[in-house]
Amino acid sequence: MLSEFDIIRSFFTRSTPGTVLGVGDDAALIRPAPGMELAISTDMLVSGHHFFEDVDPYKLGHKSLAVNLSDMAAMGARPRWATLSLALPESIVQKDESWLRAFADGFFALAHAHHVDLIGGDTTNGPLNICVTIMGEVPGGKALRRSGARPGDDIWVSGYLGDAALALAYRKKKIMLKPDEVEAAEMEAAMVALEMPVPRVGLGQRLIGLAHSAIDISDGLLADLGHILESSRVAAVVRIDQIRRSATMEKHFSHPLAIECLLAGGDDYELCFTVPSSERTKVELLSREEGIPLTRIGSIEEGEGLAVVDSAGRTVTTEVRGYDHFRV
Amino acid sequence: MLSEFDIIRSFFTRSTPGTVLGVGDDAALIRPAPGMELAISTDMLVSGHHFFEDVDPYKLGHKSLAVNLSDMAAMGARPRWATLSLALPESIVQKDESWLRAFADGFFALAHAHHVDLIGGDTTNGPLNICVTIMGEVPGGKALRRSGARPGDDIWVSGYLGDAALALAYRKKKIMLKPDEVEAAEMEAAMVALEMPVPRVGLGQRLIGLAHSAIDISDGLLADLGHILESSRVAAVVRIDQIRRSATMEKHFSHPLAIECLLAGGDDYELCFTVPSSERTKVELLSREEGIPLTRIGSIEEGEGLAVVDSAGRTVTTEVRGYDHFRV
Repeated sequence: MLSEFDIIRSFFTRSTPGTVLGVGDDAALIRPAPGMELAISTDMLVSGHHFFEDVDPYKLGHKSLAVNLSDMAAMGARPRWATLSLALPESIVQKDESWLRAFADGFFALAHAHHVDLIGGDTTNGPLNICVTIMGEVPGGKALRRSGARPGDDIWVSGYLGDAALALAYRKKKIMLKPDEVEAAEMEAAMVALEMPVPRVGLGQRLIGLAHSAIDISDGLLADLGHILESSRVAAVVRIDQIRRSATMEKHFSHPLAIECLLAGGDDYELCFTVPSSERTKVELLSREEGIPLTRIGSIEEGEGLAVVDSAGRTVTTEVRGYDHFRV
Repeated sequence: MLSEFDIIRSFFTRSTPGTVLGVGDDAALIRPAPGMELAISTDMLVSGHHFFEDVDPYKLGHKSLAVNLSDMAAMGARPRWATLSLALPESIVQKDESWLRAFADGFFALAHAHHVDLIGGDTTNGPLNICVTIMGEVPGGKALRRSGARPGDDIWVSGYLGDAALALAYRKKKIMLKPDEVEAAEMEAAMVALEMPVPRVGLGQRLIGLAHSAIDISDGLLADLGHILESSRVAAVVRIDQIRRSATMEKHFSHPLAIECLLAGGDDYELCFTVPSSERTKVELLSREEGIPLTRIGSIEEGEGLAVVDSAGRTVTTEVRGYDHFRV
């Protein structure tokens, strides 16, 4: 059976070119660049709550880091270092090494793509639990906060919303899939959104100096935009017809659950940000340069509250709300 | 029932005077002082593995941070910031708030004593799991590493070793306690060592520029000293009779388990460090100034291997080894 040290040495010790001292001492040592602030975020993923027990370990390794990179994106920070703590059940440690190898491969593939060093962590026995802490650099005083939205800002989102939640609804059989209704490829695209989210790291950094506020959509658009409104003490109007829908979402949009997925689906990891309306062309240019769909879905107003309206300006009544780990 | 946001707001949001931006955005922001390196460490504690399910939550909150502060001590770093991730079972979230309040009180009492800001974290549903990441500052290039031990160094340890493991052995009924054998107060002292360890934070910082190497004893003296020897490519001789024993340990020293607790007991969180023998008086002065027993237990030699000898220099044969989370 693998020991704790075997696991760390065999799977989680790789080169750390941007680090003073990596895995293997009581603590890692890093040296942030002068003038930079450090942005720090942490996420804990629990089996049966954040992922299915039979999840592909490569995809789980990817997602464990992706959700943290997304927080760096939302601050405009350049991710640089991460720690990884794992509680592993005996069923994983005792069987062949394929699970751990695949998990590590998924984690490091994404880490290397973003030049993130894994600098430390912990490995122990217990019900499967993954806790990643990410650290990134952002120029002093320039980080994108939730509190900077101003009346007159446009509200923008990246990519497509709701596909991850739609895939989850399929997987949980809350939406049944008729074979002729959706192409297999479309369903697969939605599953990729759920299992292999792409954090908007480059986009986040380019929003520095342009966006007044930003957040990543992990709990659903309404909940996360709501955090911006609360922190910034402003109101918003969102045009539901302006929210970009994937082909899968389009085909299911008549289903009562679909609108819930669009407005309140968690796990999207797209960015929602606000930019003064005078800067629209800059955002459109950024969208082309980064090759990421950026969609203007509404505007920030004086006051408080979040209104969702249709193309005729009528309020859409919605019962949906964001994801709460103790309420779902 | 408490929501995730209720829990964070009610129990884990306190002032963060040393932080640019604390709990409540996608990431926290910190600004390390110029010339400083950041030391980063993380520990995950799992119910039934690292603590008993019925543990006093105040003590658990203390210990969750203490084990991380101990890693800062072992690097000579000044701890400054921490993140806390919690997976909480419904049994804790649904009942009254006393568990969470006591846990938070234990955590923050120790955090405040060391001027550590809690800057972020995550709260989710799942089997009880606590993951803390700690960040501290250490002057550039000065951190105490495992790799600096040199032949001619003395080996020192702080405090008393093995009491935590002894308390655990009692608790697990591996050692039975006869009422007349040990005073209740002695037993209580051993339980305090297990449940409320005192991280040697001040001592660690004062060892900068004096010690060649340091580690905290979390897996047992032999295992942790072994890490120093391996990293430094040196050998060591330890005099077992020189290791300071508490009154509880003294009374039980004839028990076969006691010597195992002394040499290989985990959870001590004392420091083991090496200092050139020419600097003995400085260490003795430091002991007096800090009010912490510091004991010279052996010496670093050329070669490899770790010999434990008695007062006559005869090798003590021991089967004991350190704690491995997958082997105990």
